[in-house]
Amino acid sequence: LGVPLHNKNEVLIVDIEKLLEERSKEIDSVLEKWVPKSYDNLSMETAFGKARYAYSTPAANKAIAEPIWDLLSRGGKRWRPALMMLICEALGGDPVKHKDWVAIPELVHNGTLMVDDVEDNSELRRGQPCTHKKYGVDIAINAGNAMYYLPLQVILKSELPESTLIGAYEIYSQEMINISMGQGMDIAWHRGIADSDNLGENEYLQMCAFKTGTLARMAAKLGALLANSDESTIEKMGEFAEAVGIGFQIQDDVLNLTATSGKNHFVKDYIGEDIHEGKRTLLVIHTLSKASPEDRARLLEILKMHTWDRALIDEAIALIKKYDSIEYAKGKAKEIVSNAWAKAEPTLKEGTAKETLKAFVDFAIGRQY
Amino acid sequence: LGVPLHNKNEVLIVDIEKLLEERSKEIDSVLEKWVPKSYDNLSMETAFGKARYAYSTPAANKAIAEPIWDLLSRGGKRWRPALMMLICEALGGDPVKHKDWVAIPELVHNGTLMVDDVEDNSELRRGQPCTHKKYGVDIAINAGNAMYYLPLQVILKSELPESTLIGAYEIYSQEMINISMGQGMDIAWHRGIADSDNLGENEYLQMCAFKTGTLARMAAKLGALLANSDESTIEKMGEFAEAVGIGFQIQDDVLNLTATSGKNHFVKDYIGEDIHEGKRTLLVIHTLSKASPEDRARLLEILKMHTWDRALIDEAIALIKKYDSIEYAKGKAKEIVSNAWAKAEPTLKEGTAKETLKAFVDFAIGRQY
Repeated sequence: LGVPLHNKNEVLIVDIEKLLEERSKEIDSVLEKWVPKSYDNLSMETAFGKARYAYSTPAANKAIAEPIWDLLSRGGKRWRPALMMLICEALGGDPVKHKDWVAIPELVHNGTLMVDDVEDNSELRRGQPCTHKKYGVDIAINAGNAMYYLPLQVILKSELPESTLIGAYEIYSQEMINISMGQGMDIAWHRGIADSDNLGENEYLQMCAFKTGTLARMAAKLGALLANSDESTIEKMGEFAEAVGIGFQIQDDVLNLTATSGKNHFVKDYIGEDIHEGKRTLLVIHTLSKASPEDRARLLEILKMHTWDRALIDEAIALIKKYDSIEYAKGKAKEIVSNAWAKAEPTLKEGTAKETLKAFVDFAIGRQY
Repeated sequence: LGVPLHNKNEVLIVDIEKLLEERSKEIDSVLEKWVPKSYDNLSMETAFGKARYAYSTPAANKAIAEPIWDLLSRGGKRWRPALMMLICEALGGDPVKHKDWVAIPELVHNGTLMVDDVEDNSELRRGQPCTHKKYGVDIAINAGNAMYYLPLQVILKSELPESTLIGAYEIYSQEMINISMGQGMDIAWHRGIADSDNLGENEYLQMCAFKTGTLARMAAKLGALLANSDESTIEKMGEFAEAVGIGFQIQDDVLNLTATSGKNHFVKDYIGEDIHEGKRTLLVIHTLSKASPEDRARLLEILKMHTWDRALIDEAIALIKKYDSIEYAKGKAKEIVSNAWAKAEPTLKEGTAKETLKAFVDFAIGRQY
């Protein structure tokens, strides 16, 4: 999991793509340690303790292992593990020694995808039918929730000092509390039950900080904790990663309306799906604040239709573009991420990990898929 | 939250009902401390930290506080908090000092109800439309999940020694891992995707130990931990409570097929709903193992129909009764709970808390609602 050396002037988006690709196999082998592709009695005892009565591995596999690995095997960028290990290394820690810990943010992240897809009634995820379409709503919700808890085995079985473990539990707990709130806000707004027509940019960014920022923050704080950093450094790394998460989210929202190509499973499954869902993204909020009364009313009208009509969705996208909201959102993402980097940067020791983090920051706001 | 005195010979089911009723208001005021009925900026800061940008209390209330309290206000027995505090007291601890901790098993329990109702596509809960019917699937899943995490604030804000807090996090983590597995097994079986036709009693009881036993075990272990018990005592209390949970589950399954009356919100919402869902309860497993080939085939046939037809459901119930499965299940519940009590009892100090626990045990297996 070492950082590949590269010429400083070539620290470009492509480096990070390559880095993520190179690391993904090793990350997957860590994930498999905590959620096997198939349970046997031994792996059930390891995860759940000795059976009081008797285990049923077929049920465990059908309801847990199979749907979880069906999703994990579809890929995903695995950027949270990379962020965690880079931060650990750039703070003087040993990321290889602690590599098991990447399972926490990565499994939780995939769990949220599985559960959010049920909540949004989505069709496709990474180019294939969503877990609930393939396995049923009950299995998807439960397996998604299992992914929130199974990685806690990493902490349960760790032999690190108690103070580190307490720190890890605290980071996990607070971030899981926050993510529930972030998702709740997002739902309330795109369902139109909490005055989303007048939603301010700061309230939106707070939701992002909770929803997308949370798991990045969890990853970064764990990385800093494992490098034995003090509380203020851990907090600073959390803030930095939260900003990167917000940048990712804004870029995701931009790509949702604009992506026309991309690497197979990274390409968005339906251009403008966010319009169908009525999502109040930064793009929408900015447009609503700048648009003429007629354009504003029309955009709101389309968002509330929850339509799949191509012409209507394209009309909404055109309105968003008319008020330069895509440029605005990109600029905002850049501003948030650059400021956060400027604050975090002095704490990180010089070296390839820090340089890679810098490239990572550029990647977060510049990626095209 | 003291235990009401009563004549030893009158330790009957009615005492426990009264005890639970008396305590429920105080328990609800504890729950409200960790999930307010309505968020304001101050309670949001307490729960989620200072806003990086700005909070939106309307969204928090619509998506989190309102649906959660809509369910909590419908009642429920609140027996896990009572069990936790009785065990704490019977082991020499001070349940009043630690009363905040009852929020953990009780909020998690209600969260599982909200989420399970989505998974089972249920209609009614405590006499009213399920949360997902009233607020939507997205809000129900997310608010249910929030109930898994919001009570972790109790540990985050506790000033007890680190070793106690680590113990609490470990109990929570392991039990949440287990409950995901228990629910997964249950789903795999009643969906008929994991050879449930030949399901053995021990595999079934293991699922119960995970699914219904888990939160009872969490409550009991936390109660013992808060009484500063050693690890083996904590474990023993967990085993005891798990057995009580299994007893409760079996009695629930019996009542699902037999209850004809009960106190308004306790009465089962639809007699035989488990048949509709195709659930492999101990009653069904026992019947399948004893029935003639014809009766076995017919029961399996009806279970797989997922029917609401009254005549078919009654036919299935009649088959279950024909093979004395209701008496068998009641006997099994009694055996499991009595054995567990015999093992736990010597560790508990004499007094009203212990006597009440004994009555509680009788209640678990004898209750009619």
